[in-house]
Amino acid sequence: MSVNSFGRIFRFTTWGESHGPALGAVVDGCPPRLALSEGAIQPFLDARRPGQSKYTTQRQEPDAVRILSGVFEGMTTGTPISLMIENTDQRSKDYSEVAAAYRPGHADYAYDAKYGFRDYRGGGRSSARETAARVAAGAVARLVLPEVEILAWVSQIGGDAIDPAKFDAEEIGRNPFFCPDPQAAERWAELVDVTRRAGSSIGAVVECVARGVPAGWGAPVYGKLDADLAAAMMGINAVKGVEIGDGFDVARLTGEENADAMHPGEQGLEFEANHAGGIAGGISTGQPVRVRVAFKPTSSILTPVATVTKTGEATEIRTRGRHDPCVGIRGAPVVEAMMALVLADHKLLHRAQCGG
Amino acid sequence: MSVNSFGRIFRFTTWGESHGPALGAVVDGCPPRLALSEGAIQPFLDARRPGQSKYTTQRQEPDAVRILSGVFEGMTTGTPISLMIENTDQRSKDYSEVAAAYRPGHADYAYDAKYGFRDYRGGGRSSARETAARVAAGAVARLVLPEVEILAWVSQIGGDAIDPAKFDAEEIGRNPFFCPDPQAAERWAELVDVTRRAGSSIGAVVECVARGVPAGWGAPVYGKLDADLAAAMMGINAVKGVEIGDGFDVARLTGEENADAMHPGEQGLEFEANHAGGIAGGISTGQPVRVRVAFKPTSSILTPVATVTKTGEATEIRTRGRHDPCVGIRGAPVVEAMMALVLADHKLLHRAQCGG
Amino acid sequence: MSVNSFGRIFRFTTWGESHGPALGAVVDGCPPRLALSEGAIQPFLDARRPGQSKYTTQRQEPDAVRILSGVFEGMTTGTPISLMIENTDQRSKDYSEVAAAYRPGHADYAYDAKYGFRDYRGGGRSSARETAARVAAGAVARLVLPEVEILAWVSQIGGDAIDPAKFDAEEIGRNPFFCPDPQAAERWAELVDVTRRAGSSIGAVVECVARGVPAGWGAPVYGKLDADLAAAMMGINAVKGVEIGDGFDVARLTGEENADAMHPGEQGLEFEANHAGGIAGGISTGQPVRVRVAFKPTSSILTPVATVTKTGEATEIRTRGRHDPCVGIRGAPVVEAMMALVLADHKLLHRAQCGG
Amino acid sequence: MSVNSFGRIFRFTTWGESHGPALGAVVDGCPPRLALSEGAIQPFLDARRPGQSKYTTQRQEPDAVRILSGVFEGMTTGTPISLMIENTDQRSKDYSEVAAAYRPGHADYAYDAKYGFRDYRGGGRSSARETAARVAAGAVARLVLPEVEILAWVSQIGGDAIDPAKFDAEEIGRNPFFCPDPQAAERWAELVDVTRRAGSSIGAVVECVARGVPAGWGAPVYGKLDADLAAAMMGINAVKGVEIGDGFDVARLTGEENADAMHPGEQGLEFEANHAGGIAGGISTGQPVRVRVAFKPTSSILTPVATVTKTGEATEIRTRGRHDPCVGIRGAPVVEAMMALVLADHKLLHRAQCGG
Repeated sequence: MSVNSFGRIFRFTTWGESHGPALGAVVDGCPPRLALSEGAIQPFLDARRPGQSKYTTQRQEPDAVRILSGVFEGMTTGTPISLMIENTDQRSKDYSEVAAAYRPGHADYAYDAKYGFRDYRGGGRSSARETAARVAAGAVARLVLPEVEILAWVSQIGGDAIDPAKFDAEEIGRNPFFCPDPQAAERWAELVDVTRRAGSSIGAVVECVARGVPAGWGAPVYGKLDADLAAAMMGINAVKGVEIGDGFDVARLTGEENADAMHPGEQGLEFEANHAGGIAGGISTGQPVRVRVAFKPTSSILTPVATVTKTGEATEIRTRGRHDPCVGIRGAPVVEAMMALVLADHKLLHRAQCGG
Repeated sequence: MSVNSFGRIFRFTTWGESHGPALGAVVDGCPPRLALSEGAIQPFLDARRPGQSKYTTQRQEPDAVRILSGVFEGMTTGTPISLMIENTDQRSKDYSEVAAAYRPGHADYAYDAKYGFRDYRGGGRSSARETAARVAAGAVARLVLPEVEILAWVSQIGGDAIDPAKFDAEEIGRNPFFCPDPQAAERWAELVDVTRRAGSSIGAVVECVARGVPAGWGAPVYGKLDADLAAAMMGINAVKGVEIGDGFDVARLTGEENADAMHPGEQGLEFEANHAGGIAGGISTGQPVRVRVAFKPTSSILTPVATVTKTGEATEIRTRGRHDPCVGIRGAPVVEAMMALVLADHKLLHRAQCGG
Repeated sequence: MSVNSFGRIFRFTTWGESHGPALGAVVDGCPPRLALSEGAIQPFLDARRPGQSKYTTQRQEPDAVRILSGVFEGMTTGTPISLMIENTDQRSKDYSEVAAAYRPGHADYAYDAKYGFRDYRGGGRSSARETAARVAAGAVARLVLPEVEILAWVSQIGGDAIDPAKFDAEEIGRNPFFCPDPQAAERWAELVDVTRRAGSSIGAVVECVARGVPAGWGAPVYGKLDADLAAAMMGINAVKGVEIGDGFDVARLTGEENADAMHPGEQGLEFEANHAGGIAGGISTGQPVRVRVAFKPTSSILTPVATVTKTGEATEIRTRGRHDPCVGIRGAPVVEAMMALVLADHKLLHRAQCGG
Repeated sequence: MSVNSFGRIFRFTTWGESHGPALGAVVDGCPPRLALSEGAIQPFLDARRPGQSKYTTQRQEPDAVRILSGVFEGMTTGTPISLMIENTDQRSKDYSEVAAAYRPGHADYAYDAKYGFRDYRGGGRSSARETAARVAAGAVARLVLPEVEILAWVSQIGGDAIDPAKFDAEEIGRNPFFCPDPQAAERWAELVDVTRRAGSSIGAVVECVARGVPAGWGAPVYGKLDADLAAAMMGINAVKGVEIGDGFDVARLTGEENADAMHPGEQGLEFEANHAGGIAGGISTGQPVRVRVAFKPTSSILTPVATVTKTGEATEIRTRGRHDPCVGIRGAPVVEAMMALVLADHKLLHRAQCGG
């Protein structure tokens, strides 16, 4: 019931604050005898790592992961895998303003209301820096899913969406926006740079597809694959919306328009469409699992915003610091990690009840 | 870890199939000494009950709830509250077609792929009839939340949305659509009737607001209030999208546009807006908690759709039966119930860790 | 986290009070396609059923189980199995004395201290009658364990133990004491009858062995097979001690005396002894899993005992009612059921992580 | 459901192997604003620390704990508390014998049977070294329990028990055996030294009492305080038996002998005896909570014992290494820690459901 844990069988727990000595994840329930080393995790952390372009926060962190347990002679042992990432760029800074007043849109006030107290340095536990631990855990989850290919990308920044006709998976790794449409990437470079220079921020949409998920994963009625994905995605910092398959668009459709007709195919069932996003009744159908996730603009902006001090007086705050002008960009590797974590868990859960 | 249970402290488990003898919920963790009787639950079931207008399924079920345990002398005892609803209108019917072929958009194929077997009568466990158990459990959850007012309504059917300027909470109970805009209700009467007579179906959007939630409920980072709400809503039958606050709209905004500026007020903090939907960092802020939920059109339609038989051959299926032309309508009481269930759980969870 | 649920994958939830309309269990996580009918459960309930000899309580209950969900065409569907047992012999009785004063040794005072309130009729939820639900759930668990043979018996009543040399498994079903030693059974008939006629009660020890458990079930370090068995057994009404293998005797031994030497055998590993009770490091070794459980004498006796009223005044109470003179006797089928429930859960948990 | 986690609300997860770089615990659910520093944890680790007398293993470990998260300005923040202890004395050693053959009584064979693979260095995850993480977590649990005083001691080594009449709590800290009877401590010095010099080992019994637990903690029927204590204790390495209150002795008693008569007292209820060990119906009664725990002799002995190699051939093994001749001695601080962890969890769980 730990609120800092996620998953049922393949279950991970994260710990750590933005400006503490380190952060980490403990992954429990991982099957034994899977090849694992720090080198298998690091590339995923590097993809999420800040400070790699001018479009993300300039905090410089190597985000080097250490495996402290659960691996012996290069293989998982079946016991908890402890992953630790040291915080190295805890820039000494004056936090007195943030300590005294609540940053609107941030969790400052909510944490204080809940705990009567908060670690105000860089947002403490509420910092998106915690997602590094999820990405590390997600890299372990992928070991459990050799049959599944997971891909996430940014499909929209502000009001500017990619052209689906120009989707090229190869492009995603070639630009700093995880953008599959090279022309959109060029436009976004301008858009994000203008935003950054204005000390402003902007929202984004991330999409993720998992191919190769067999029919049968997911567990009705409160362990549905789509419900677990919704929790996984909505729990990522700055996320305000989640869609499975066609999402909100289906509200406008008729049953005929929304039907995913089926035909016998050479390799089993074939579907005419995938409005459902690969999930029916909470169980995978064998089609690609599709998720869309909305990220709000970072709340940290240079424009002063009216707020309240800890003692209840009116003030204004402008957030200096080193912030992502578009936090959704670095959200893509996190969405990918959460997809892997949910699927790994459901694969094992399905095996528990149904064998195979 | 039971996949048919939901909640952490205030936790309920549901059981039952569409055409079995009964269905029910076991509510565990409810505080003692709360006044509870069947009469306190029945009105919520009646609101969700089918067969009350021509706009919903014509299945006739009294949905009379019985309390089998956990209440003594009219008060909760702190022990599990067992709620049972008998199925009375299990119309004897020929299910051979549904048994033999998979209805597109339904969970038929996914259940068979998972379990190698399925109760095909009325969808078995995947039937939306299961949500009656959630509504019953939700009525108990409300006892825990005297300070909170929860209201859900249908805000859109197909492409036709209400006019927010005409929102009148009193109207919601006056029409068969849970519609707060009387003019929209009139238009929908026509729209849904046409849809029904055509043997078609149509999607909808349900919105829900909880007022009176104090700041401090919700638990970072994998027990976030918004993440739990997302799971609760996405797990409702036919739901494909969930938004908190402004949802997907925030992806288009700048940080300045999305800011919820704060001011000192007479009764504590006041906010200029509520883009965040009452939740920051996964914790309630004291503002109204706002959720939007997209329902797909019922997959059961009279137009034949291509599908596959259990043995893999091509066929067509048209679903006769008694179905909701717009399943989202009866989704409103279910969304309301899930909101209550999540909030009750988080109230107790907050009390566990932080007292108060 | 429901406190009225037990198990991780194969998980059951029980509900119901001694004198409510019914009690039951919801079994979740059961694999699909196992043959199940009420007839497969009833014999286990009959073994535990009261009123079958003068050595147990004279409460007359048919304890007829009904399956309300989760079974279709005689097979489990993989969805929750709801089991219900109606209470029929809720003898109308004057409970005013029990309502007003706390019965020593019973949970009366503790329930009042916890909940500020209690269902005093027959002990309410604290009644051993709740164990009927465990026995019903245990019968389902056995379906998951075709390779395992579980046997429980009473090995001691009061100070009178069986002679291990006279152990005869066939005898267990032939006497009303679940006693494998026919001579002990004769002595106990006299002992329990004298106890009963004196309005007194007496303690007992139950032993249980599970044969056929393969090596590898159990999960270090907080899901150990022996730790889960300890919780399962200690949670049975009136139990005050649990031993695995040689239990407390090992405290007196040296390492040499306690060693379970191993040899290669024709069918794999062979052990010289089984001091460990079939579990090492929390994981099964392939040897028989052995548990011993101590039951206290029923607290309900005719001799008046000093106690306190609800309002804090001194009084005396003697418990009339229909009580077991030796509650440990009817504990044997419950111990057997809990063994099955723990093993079924660990079989599935092992399969989840390690396959096979 | 993580099998390396324990607790419901106050929940901790441990990780680490005997010879890995470090081990640790993540404590989740701890209330905020409790004073915590490494100095508050270290004394408990020091009490359990090996190498302090000739009666325990000569492995030299400083067991210095570091707090990596969850504490800010000397107070708990309500977020996960990550505790790490580095392994410094991972003596380079030839493990080829242990790698090739199974040590009888150890978890070697069971781990291999489960995972197909094991970290054989010092027992890996099955090593009692893992209990250091429990002791660290237990020190945090004590912060939640200012009203409770917990004391554990060794009451028996081999066949030699303390004289209860000579019980002196002050003595416990004065000898290397956690022995409250100074004369027994002298006898044990001889007994354990003889055992150690013979390369043998010996069993022990540890007792633990918690005073100040109010009536009302514990949650029927599968979250009983005694059931959770049984799991907590049976899950400690080398434990084979657990008793609550009078334990197995009650099996020999009559209801009259076992009665805990109650009287009105100046400060509330007074009991004549405490056969029940402070728990009735799974709920605390306000009396001292009493537990007895049996530890087997360490399986590592110098006498060769017949065993089997990984490839199934007969061999003999004698365990050199640095081992405790009586592992029960260092079990006392672990029992104390587990008592604190269970009580802290139940205090918060009670508050969740019943307030106060």
